[in-house]
Amino acid sequence: MYRSHNCGALNASHIATEVTLAGWVQKSRDKGFMIWVDLRDRYGITQLIFDSERTDTAVFEMAKTLGREFVIQVKGTVIERESKNKNMATGDIEILVSELTILNVALTPPFTIEDETDGGEDIRMKYRYLDIRRNPVKNSLLFRHKVAMEVRKYLSDLDFCEVETPYLIKSTPEGARDFVVPSRMNEGQFYALPQSPQTFKQLLMVGGMDKYFQIVKCFRDEDLRADRQPEFTQIDCEMAFVEQEDILNVFEGLTRHLLKEIKGIEVDKFPRITYDYAMKTYGNDKPDIRFGMEFGELNEVAQHKEFSVFNTAELVVGIAAPGCASYTRKEIDNLIDWVKRPQIGASGMVYAKYELDGTIKSSVDKFYDQEDLLNWAKVTGAKPGDLILVLSGPAHKTRTQLSALRMEVATRLGLRNPEVFAPLWVVDFPLLEFDEESGRYHAMHHPFTSPKPEDIALLETEPGKVRANAYDMVLNGNEIGGGSIRIHDKATQQLMFKYLGFTEEEAKAQFGFLMDAFQFGAPPHGGLAFGLDRLVAILGGQETIRDFIAFPKNNSGRDVMIDAPSVIDDKQLEELHIRLK
Amino acid sequence: MYRSHNCGALNASHIATEVTLAGWVQKSRDKGFMIWVDLRDRYGITQLIFDSERTDTAVFEMAKTLGREFVIQVKGTVIERESKNKNMATGDIEILVSELTILNVALTPPFTIEDETDGGEDIRMKYRYLDIRRNPVKNSLLFRHKVAMEVRKYLSDLDFCEVETPYLIKSTPEGARDFVVPSRMNEGQFYALPQSPQTFKQLLMVGGMDKYFQIVKCFRDEDLRADRQPEFTQIDCEMAFVEQEDILNVFEGLTRHLLKEIKGIEVDKFPRITYDYAMKTYGNDKPDIRFGMEFGELNEVAQHKEFSVFNTAELVVGIAAPGCASYTRKEIDNLIDWVKRPQIGASGMVYAKYELDGTIKSSVDKFYDQEDLLNWAKVTGAKPGDLILVLSGPAHKTRTQLSALRMEVATRLGLRNPEVFAPLWVVDFPLLEFDEESGRYHAMHHPFTSPKPEDIALLETEPGKVRANAYDMVLNGNEIGGGSIRIHDKATQQLMFKYLGFTEEEAKAQFGFLMDAFQFGAPPHGGLAFGLDRLVAILGGQETIRDFIAFPKNNSGRDVMIDAPSVIDDKQLEELHIRLK
Repeated sequence: MYRSHNCGALNASHIATEVTLAGWVQKSRDKGFMIWVDLRDRYGITQLIFDSERTDTAVFEMAKTLGREFVIQVKGTVIERESKNKNMATGDIEILVSELTILNVALTPPFTIEDETDGGEDIRMKYRYLDIRRNPVKNSLLFRHKVAMEVRKYLSDLDFCEVETPYLIKSTPEGARDFVVPSRMNEGQFYALPQSPQTFKQLLMVGGMDKYFQIVKCFRDEDLRADRQPEFTQIDCEMAFVEQEDILNVFEGLTRHLLKEIKGIEVDKFPRITYDYAMKTYGNDKPDIRFGMEFGELNEVAQHKEFSVFNTAELVVGIAAPGCASYTRKEIDNLIDWVKRPQIGASGMVYAKYELDGTIKSSVDKFYDQEDLLNWAKVTGAKPGDLILVLSGPAHKTRTQLSALRMEVATRLGLRNPEVFAPLWVVDFPLLEFDEESGRYHAMHHPFTSPKPEDIALLETEPGKVRANAYDMVLNGNEIGGGSIRIHDKATQQLMFKYLGFTEEEAKAQFGFLMDAFQFGAPPHGGLAFGLDRLVAILGGQETIRDFIAFPKNNSGRDVMIDAPSVIDDKQLEELHIRLK
Repeated sequence: MYRSHNCGALNASHIATEVTLAGWVQKSRDKGFMIWVDLRDRYGITQLIFDSERTDTAVFEMAKTLGREFVIQVKGTVIERESKNKNMATGDIEILVSELTILNVALTPPFTIEDETDGGEDIRMKYRYLDIRRNPVKNSLLFRHKVAMEVRKYLSDLDFCEVETPYLIKSTPEGARDFVVPSRMNEGQFYALPQSPQTFKQLLMVGGMDKYFQIVKCFRDEDLRADRQPEFTQIDCEMAFVEQEDILNVFEGLTRHLLKEIKGIEVDKFPRITYDYAMKTYGNDKPDIRFGMEFGELNEVAQHKEFSVFNTAELVVGIAAPGCASYTRKEIDNLIDWVKRPQIGASGMVYAKYELDGTIKSSVDKFYDQEDLLNWAKVTGAKPGDLILVLSGPAHKTRTQLSALRMEVATRLGLRNPEVFAPLWVVDFPLLEFDEESGRYHAMHHPFTSPKPEDIALLETEPGKVRANAYDMVLNGNEIGGGSIRIHDKATQQLMFKYLGFTEEEAKAQFGFLMDAFQFGAPPHGGLAFGLDRLVAILGGQETIRDFIAFPKNNSGRDVMIDAPSVIDDKQLEELHIRLK
């Protein structure tokens, strides 16, 4: 072993102890007669001192040559520091070095290895192994490990069994694109990497495993939006002999456990709202409820008052921005510009200031009197001092715009505190959603989700109105988990494939094994999957997942550090029975 | 929830309780006026009773229709059984059923769902979800989970951090074949699936993570020998600032912990033997030391005695089969036939019976007298009652043959008890091995293994004699883990690639990122990887890994249940910029 202690271990209780430490040179200060070196490892920083009077000359001279990120081993004595640093675990002591070994030299790193670095995203990715030395990244990876361990412990204690499902599976054209793997031994055939272990976990339920989980990599070959990765990690779960209520309780329990164990935060029972309510109240199926600003629909109180913009709109809807009646004209114009940006696409915004004296001053005073505007305040829940912001237009589009505005206002008001956690369940998702492009319905969750029994009759007449036993867990405006009660009989599954536009042959070729399995005694079952990358990032108080992934890929799906993907040689292509186009 | 208790939970303390159970019909016995049903779930079996006098007629009639593997829910009262079954946790009670719901019917399963099944390997694989209902498979998966949890707990408690490394990496022609994944976004380029996270774990050490582990899937597109899988699971570990001794201690500790926690077995400190000693003493670098029969080299005592077979042989080597002096001529001929089979390839076998009266009777009595043969006994460690078995020929080949014979004799003698555990370390592996086919040296472990410093000079002169800081953990004749101290400086790594026949360009193209990383302050580091599938199987007392994998592939790399790999459509090929040959 190259060390007797790590660089975070020593304190005043060790004074006069002979120790051996190893680590990286964080920085050194050469005062001529005295050299201080901060020695860093994963566990902390310990100050080394080389003293021209007390240190052997050869050692002292060698210490002068130490550069940033050199790897060294030192022997020495723990002594009390003259000027203590109360902000460091090791701040009371330093090591008077007697022996110094340079274990490895280092080139000057391309960016500073400090909490605040001067390195841009690209260079940090290329030298990710240096980026990982920085506390923000290192601590994110340690944090991720801690979360994963707690998840495993909690579920295992509840008799869940982690089962590894295969990575080399079968390609299914439904949904997102698969990554495929040509088979050498089976000419002309391909494996696919799983987008999720969905069918396997259902087969485990048919197989009687009863309670399954797995922390597992999944793969989607989609064009990468910001903060998405082609490979990502799920906490994948499934239970047999359960109803929706049981699943919500178990995984609400898991999330409360994590908040308590990891963050020390106790949260109340999660609110549950329906998808319809979420869309109407927040314009969004993953509402951030750390703050209010619920939507108030103003059609009744704002239409037919000579203001043609509202009169011709399908929906007039507003929110009350708390305490913003004091906004200047400039601040309000800025918000109007914001909603008119192409990314949001509103044609304009109406506002009404609910002054502290109880009067309301609006941008449409010529159409609305105080009584009208007090009704707006009532509907949007505005109080004196608030600013009412109103958008109008086609219902769905307007809700989406107001949802974006609501989040923007909350951000400006500092209401999205990453150390506040407001989880909830959104339930009763639609079973199907209409896809304009293909002109047919798609499964909103996936084709294995069961319709609510009372809605099955609607499949023939109004498929878009059929609700599913499907649910999402939402945390601070992010969907962190989602699942459903599954279909567990062949007839319903066949019916579902039919409604989704599969021919009988297609359904059999792709999912025949699952429908076969349903004939041999499939129990009622359901489950859910959490996105671990996102969950960990949110618990860690961060907006982006990238620092919680050791070796992420860029937006072109490249690993710029190892330079992958890359070309392969002709012999390999030959063996795989493929060629390039 | 479909149940108040599971099928393993109820006992005499629950008598008179109203309960709801759900599960599968294991079997039913219809005695006309009385029907008994064994209801099964993951947790156990509970006996249900339907009684024509006490049960509602409609329920009773429905009970008559229940077939094997039907999924049912029952309500009823826990009552005391008349004839108790002491072998079952629930054997004191039964449920007098008042309500019965058939949750799902079942076709007759293609094989019996019992501990001893009538299903062959192929049919069990096709209906793996039914096979998993059987206790031997179900319990193997639960056992695997338990082992994996203990591994994570042990390493985590020692400050190891589990870090997820990427699955979409870069193809490297070295070693086994990669599975590759065509990139849609990077035309003509391919990812590879990792054969191991080797370079990433080394980069994590360069990144200061200090102690890393991961339970991770790895992939090798090799022709599948019996009991190998194209995707397999490793417990992958790496540590910085350590020497070989530290690594051996940590992972010996892990293995002792598993044996104790999982099997309740305490083992002594593991023996450590060198590779050379293992080859000389057991003819094998993964010796089974649950039994003796160490090799005795007989050249000195058996050559130059007029027996030309021995005189012309490079090596004459024997073992003493304990207690086998009583073998009949037929039993011995059977062993001779066994070593002469083409799989073993010996041209013959000499034997000598060390009788209980102290005399020795050999198959070569005309060349050797009692004194000679007593010397054989001394060298092989034979005692009166033992049978000395001797092979001769070229050294390496003969050792391999005798190793196989040693294992066969041990099997016949019942010395390979799966509930006895004899772990050991084999150390000082050669760095390189000569490959006849390519006419050059290959890395025995992998190209990142460090040579022993004292042997580096031999690289130029006798590369085959250079020893590595490489070690295997062996358990009951299986290599269950292996690792090494790594190279951590660019110059040595470059030298190694040179000796392995890489051009400078090839080395840079494939592993440039690693050599770059070594320039920025790489610490000394090393590690090891366990094969989890094999480790779990051995701990579970089984010879084959297949039942410890939920959804294994067959010897052609196919998943016969889901029928993968399979063809993909032309549009997919088009998008991936490839076509079939």
